[in-house]
Amino acid sequence: MIPKRHGAKLTDIPDDSLSEILSVAKKLASASGAENYNILQNNGRSAHQVVDHVHFHMIPKPSTDKGLGIGWPAQNVDKGELEKVFDEMKGRL
Amino acid sequence: MIPKRHGAKLTDIPDDSLSEILSVAKKLASASGAENYNILQNNGRSAHQVVDHVHFHMIPKPSTDKGLGIGWPAQNVDKGELEKVFDEMKGRL
Repeated sequence: MIPKRHGAKLTDIPDDSLSEILSVAKKLASASGAENYNILQNNGRSAHQVVDHVHFHMIPKPSTDKGLGIGWPAQNVDKGELEKVFDEMKGRL
Repeated sequence: MIPKRHGAKLTDIPDDSLSEILSVAKKLASASGAENYNILQNNGRSAHQVVDHVHFHMIPKPSTDKGLGIGWPAQNVDKGELEKVFDEMKGRL
């Protein structure tokens, strides 16, 4: 699925061009007949974006060895460090 | 981010509860200061969903070895088979 407005990353797309995308994702998921599925939207080359126009993937997951596999390296984070990140984020809102 | 309406999977959430989620995702991405990031929403245990209430992840990708890693097993598909899938999907829309 792609928004009508061009933009390389999600943050480049105005809100009014984003409001219907998830409804379309829902329809696609239903039409695929998939019981399990992932919705994925990548921003930036290092984040697996290959085409520089915002697009959403609806990826059926028929079994554990098919569809999207994800790796999410976990780490223990110091509470004070987390609070610092939170404050930085609040500052940007 | 979570929609206000409860639902286990995306297909369980009415459209009007989905329209603002991506705007919130955008704000979070901006606030994080991340240049590269992924938006991910998982549906079903085999598709990496751990909590059975629809939720969206905004995952900053600071470097190739941090953040979300994805594996997407590719396969060659026969054109006739693809057309069959397409017809099946159209039938469900």
